[in-house]
Amino acid sequence: MRLSRIRYEGRPVRAEIEDDRAFVLDGDDKRTGRSVELATADFLPPVVPGVFYAVGYNYRSHVAEHGAKVPERPEVGYRANNALTGHNTPIVRPEGVTGRFEAEGELVAVLGRTLRRASRDEARAAVLGWTIGNDVSAREWQHADRTFWRSKNSDTFKPMGPWIETDLDPMAQTTTVRVDGSVRAAFATGDMIFDPYDYLVETSKYITLHPGDVLWMGADSTVQLEPGTVVEIEISGIGVLANPVLTERHPS
Amino acid sequence: MRLSRIRYEGRPVRAEIEDDRAFVLDGDDKRTGRSVELATADFLPPVVPGVFYAVGYNYRSHVAEHGAKVPERPEVGYRANNALTGHNTPIVRPEGVTGRFEAEGELVAVLGRTLRRASRDEARAAVLGWTIGNDVSAREWQHADRTFWRSKNSDTFKPMGPWIETDLDPMAQTTTVRVDGSVRAAFATGDMIFDPYDYLVETSKYITLHPGDVLWMGADSTVQLEPGTVVEIEISGIGVLANPVLTERHPS
Repeated sequence: MRLSRIRYEGRPVRAEIEDDRAFVLDGDDKRTGRSVELATADFLPPVVPGVFYAVGYNYRSHVAEHGAKVPERPEVGYRANNALTGHNTPIVRPEGVTGRFEAEGELVAVLGRTLRRASRDEARAAVLGWTIGNDVSAREWQHADRTFWRSKNSDTFKPMGPWIETDLDPMAQTTTVRVDGSVRAAFATGDMIFDPYDYLVETSKYITLHPGDVLWMGADSTVQLEPGTVVEIEISGIGVLANPVLTERHPS
Repeated sequence: MRLSRIRYEGRPVRAEIEDDRAFVLDGDDKRTGRSVELATADFLPPVVPGVFYAVGYNYRSHVAEHGAKVPERPEVGYRANNALTGHNTPIVRPEGVTGRFEAEGELVAVLGRTLRRASRDEARAAVLGWTIGNDVSAREWQHADRTFWRSKNSDTFKPMGPWIETDLDPMAQTTTVRVDGSVRAAFATGDMIFDPYDYLVETSKYITLHPGDVLWMGADSTVQLEPGTVVEIEISGIGVLANPVLTERHPS
């Protein structure tokens, strides 16, 4: 099953995707009889998390590229909800960003149950499904600042979607990053250092995870973004998250 | 006005505090006619933020104590909602925590309006009110881990409350930290390096802040916590946030 959130008649609603249509759901997740074509659907991030977890270095070649140490334990970091944006909405490069402005295509686990001191089986059962994240970073800010506040959490820096796929083997997929249709990176989700359940088991030793929380799983490769292009992240078995890249225009 | 969230007949509700009672509010923030005594009220964190901002070094003596550099710009960090807990609820020291396990008493700004590219006056007008946060840290984990995940975000590490005071001069107050009634720290909020509006103006250059977001303003001093004691943070003009400290007991 594929679950999305769309703006319908001006309001955010949940919708189930089937073939080329999004079927609007009611509060009990039953179809209302209303639907829109996917091509015209106004996608929102498929969930607004209570806590937005993200993993840093989780692929060996990404670790090597940055001269970092291979992590010995699965440790989560955090991103911020203001940065989330939906499929087909623009990534806006802020004024003042120069140098590396990069996309990372990431598998995202969406929690459906509460987890605390979870076994691996409990962690597996708690994942509602999987979506796609584009973890955009402004690297000069990342190096200049004390925290990741604007380098990774500026508005529009965290596209997520287009939907949550509930039926997927997360470790048997391929992530492909394209810019204007040209492939810039491709890697196997199975190359992760720690898998999603490793993170959920370890995190839940100290932390209660809640339904709606998301866990972004890191990327193998970074891809430079240029305004005027469209970046697409495809994960096999889920779909394609596409976002045009624009430059900021100040309201005068 | 003082606004809280309490558990009432098993459900979270908003409540207005007057004298020694909490008056339950309806969806339009009107009093319902139902109320409870403060002494028996079951306090929840007064707000569940969309984004939980926190400031690190924001008082000169705290910077000096840690041998850190005085920050040159107001840069926010992040904490996680799972760690929030209400007034009078326990701070649980997890198994495996040894060494410094510390409280920091912090003024907290609660946003009431959306902010983007805000002027200082707009930032001032966007603050709904002020509450109290206790920023608990397990320092050995803080030094051992890549991120602040469990050192600062383990469950119960972020007591917040007891209520939001809408009528306060935030820079003219005294923060006092007591353990079992004995004063362990006291400092003036006016000693902040950057004030709340400095942070809101700078953050909003890149980031949209939303109603309900919180900004924890940092502390001048840290206070060691021992299980079996009660830690109180008082900020003049707001009130007292009290939490007993316990050790974790695993469910068998």
